[in-house]
Amino acid sequence: MDMILSINAGSSSVKISVYKTDQSTSTPTQLAEATVEGLTAPPAKLKYSRGDQKIKGQELSDISSQEDAFKYILSHLQSDSGLPELSKTEDIHFTCHRVVHGGDYPRSQIIDKETYHHIEELSDLAPLHNGPALSIVRAVSEILPHAKNIAYFDSSFHATLPKHICTYPIDQSVAVRAKLRKYGFHGISYQFITDAVASYLNKPKDSLNIIALHLGSGASACCIKGGRSHDTTMGLTPLAGLPGATRSGSIDPSLMFHFTHNASSPSHSASGHLHITQAEEILNKNSGWKSLTGTTDFGAISSSDKEECKLAFDIFVDRILNYLGPYFTKLGGEVDALVFAGGIGEKGARLRQEVVKGVECLGFKLDMGKNESPADEVVTDISAGDAKLKTLICQTDEQLQMAKGVLDDRGRFVGKKG
Amino acid sequence: MDMILSINAGSSSVKISVYKTDQSTSTPTQLAEATVEGLTAPPAKLKYSRGDQKIKGQELSDISSQEDAFKYILSHLQSDSGLPELSKTEDIHFTCHRVVHGGDYPRSQIIDKETYHHIEELSDLAPLHNGPALSIVRAVSEILPHAKNIAYFDSSFHATLPKHICTYPIDQSVAVRAKLRKYGFHGISYQFITDAVASYLNKPKDSLNIIALHLGSGASACCIKGGRSHDTTMGLTPLAGLPGATRSGSIDPSLMFHFTHNASSPSHSASGHLHITQAEEILNKNSGWKSLTGTTDFGAISSSDKEECKLAFDIFVDRILNYLGPYFTKLGGEVDALVFAGGIGEKGARLRQEVVKGVECLGFKLDMGKNESPADEVVTDISAGDAKLKTLICQTDEQLQMAKGVLDDRGRFVGKKG
Repeated sequence: MDMILSINAGSSSVKISVYKTDQSTSTPTQLAEATVEGLTAPPAKLKYSRGDQKIKGQELSDISSQEDAFKYILSHLQSDSGLPELSKTEDIHFTCHRVVHGGDYPRSQIIDKETYHHIEELSDLAPLHNGPALSIVRAVSEILPHAKNIAYFDSSFHATLPKHICTYPIDQSVAVRAKLRKYGFHGISYQFITDAVASYLNKPKDSLNIIALHLGSGASACCIKGGRSHDTTMGLTPLAGLPGATRSGSIDPSLMFHFTHNASSPSHSASGHLHITQAEEILNKNSGWKSLTGTTDFGAISSSDKEECKLAFDIFVDRILNYLGPYFTKLGGEVDALVFAGGIGEKGARLRQEVVKGVECLGFKLDMGKNESPADEVVTDISAGDAKLKTLICQTDEQLQMAKGVLDDRGRFVGKKG
Repeated sequence: MDMILSINAGSSSVKISVYKTDQSTSTPTQLAEATVEGLTAPPAKLKYSRGDQKIKGQELSDISSQEDAFKYILSHLQSDSGLPELSKTEDIHFTCHRVVHGGDYPRSQIIDKETYHHIEELSDLAPLHNGPALSIVRAVSEILPHAKNIAYFDSSFHATLPKHICTYPIDQSVAVRAKLRKYGFHGISYQFITDAVASYLNKPKDSLNIIALHLGSGASACCIKGGRSHDTTMGLTPLAGLPGATRSGSIDPSLMFHFTHNASSPSHSASGHLHITQAEEILNKNSGWKSLTGTTDFGAISSSDKEECKLAFDIFVDRILNYLGPYFTKLGGEVDALVFAGGIGEKGARLRQEVVKGVECLGFKLDMGKNESPADEVVTDISAGDAKLKTLICQTDEQLQMAKGVLDDRGRFVGKKG
């Protein structure tokens, strides 16, 4: 039996899922899940669930970094008497780390000195996004020296983007040297969605054509052709494409220089590890629907009558629709399903309704009842009976996808020290 | 009889068309057309046509500014004995100026002190683009004090963009103060296309739904719903959306800060009149297909077998397709025509072929013969006989559109001093 920790570190939270697995099964079993939230708005709070036992909103003192949060969760897991499988650090065999930017890595990597160094270099491309994971990777190798550390990249799934789609029409000598191209993100989620939908539709993965939407506080869309990423909305960094809770998404590339003349100056939150500009700070953290409405809670926005909330809602629907049409044509109209996933994609009935209404002329149509109260399954069909094309909801699970990866790739990792 | 000069000043050229008109006709008659090209790559050259008489490639010395070019053309027109209608400056009653950025102006404006000052202020939003026209406007008011000067804005046609489409999800206090929103451009051309296609299809303008492509060294697309602009690809400035000859089009808004750490520094070409950053210079002048292939000649790129030319061609097709799908759905699939216009749109048979192939699943299909050798008409149908939806070519004419505007709006201008 192997124990796996799947670690998902964001800018203000750390989420860890604990799985056990043995070689006879193909799906890891989740034992517990712990999240420390609010790192940037102290006091941090613990959310924990194991079987029927749940903790929610427990305030923690002196927890302000991702590393603090990781250590706290680890000691919480070890001291939980209901989790005898994990009573000492040596019980943990694998830790999986969600790393946003993986550059050219087409798959997960065991983290040794060399790969750590390379990931650190890559993070120059997305310091805001890779920073949190890297601080935990550093901590883990000291605290859990026996475990194999594996990095899963949000960009790897998009290694199949065709060259004419991932190339920016800019000076190629600079582009090649600085590795400036479309990478795409949310790939761990898109891999989960691809596997789950192929299995649900009983189709071989390599003939699956779907338009997938991962809509959360970060949001993106992906055109999946023959089970592989063919186009996606995020770019060199997660900023491009759809707006998010605090992210502008695509805007006129000139805009920032009219917004602030200090666009290139280092941001306040830049540190030794983090080289970001004011522009990146503003566009990633002070834009999106928060800048329009004052809240990051899209559920509240969706049900509000306030003019600024209606505007934010309509903008999000419009920007999503900007990608469904081209992904439909890039699949030649042969679309197995439009798939909603991510927090907003899974919970936002009104958003789904407006988005699907916008592509009714392509053959999509919802069953209003199913859309309002979808079944609690990994994949649920919410299409109308007379819809030409299917619309699905997929409860995506990045933690589980990483743990599954350990099983699938064990051969690649055995013998390699991490 | 009135004489109208339609003036179209670009960054390296000035083009002037001479029209005569009388109150009984609704279309001005073109008498002559003169272009001075190569202002940024001296010696400048004259192209001139009047009836059968043509001059081409005549080198000019000491012509290096838009104002020089304007004065040269004016004296050339006055000294052409075949053009007795224009023998002295007093013969010119109206001058029309194509101004790229018109801010919130929903229509053409007679240029008096107040409007000139306002247009100058607006130019802060697009200094690279408004500069050439403004330098001629300044000159004209001295040289032709009797003429009425009218500014036609590329942005006016898009004054009808819905709020959720033209609003960027950024801090609205800054956005409102600095007037940061999607404006859209090529509007003089889109107005011409709308009028011409409505007339060709014999449809009332206010029920015309088309997807229009103005493809030249600057390129954009427009979703025209009920004869009005509903969405378009350019944004706050002409940089957003499709790539062009030297323009990147939309890229990850973070990209520039990874391309050069001096993104916000003033560009070399910035002057007292021009406040532009290195980023704007690079993305507007050193990107696009020139940066991929070394040439701005899209015709040469289309017919080349070189790998970098194929890549540039495929990128352009892909980016165009990114907008056809959503504009189709924004029109609910009720599309009267897909319309190709602009130098590349009108001449690029291979480009049209690949673009239309990419939206065949929506019902567009070309007649290969008609596409290869379209008729020399203002509007030509190149659709296949069994196409569900029409594809047209429109020979757009911004000069003529401005001159027509003088006739249409004469009531508005009479009595006002310009």
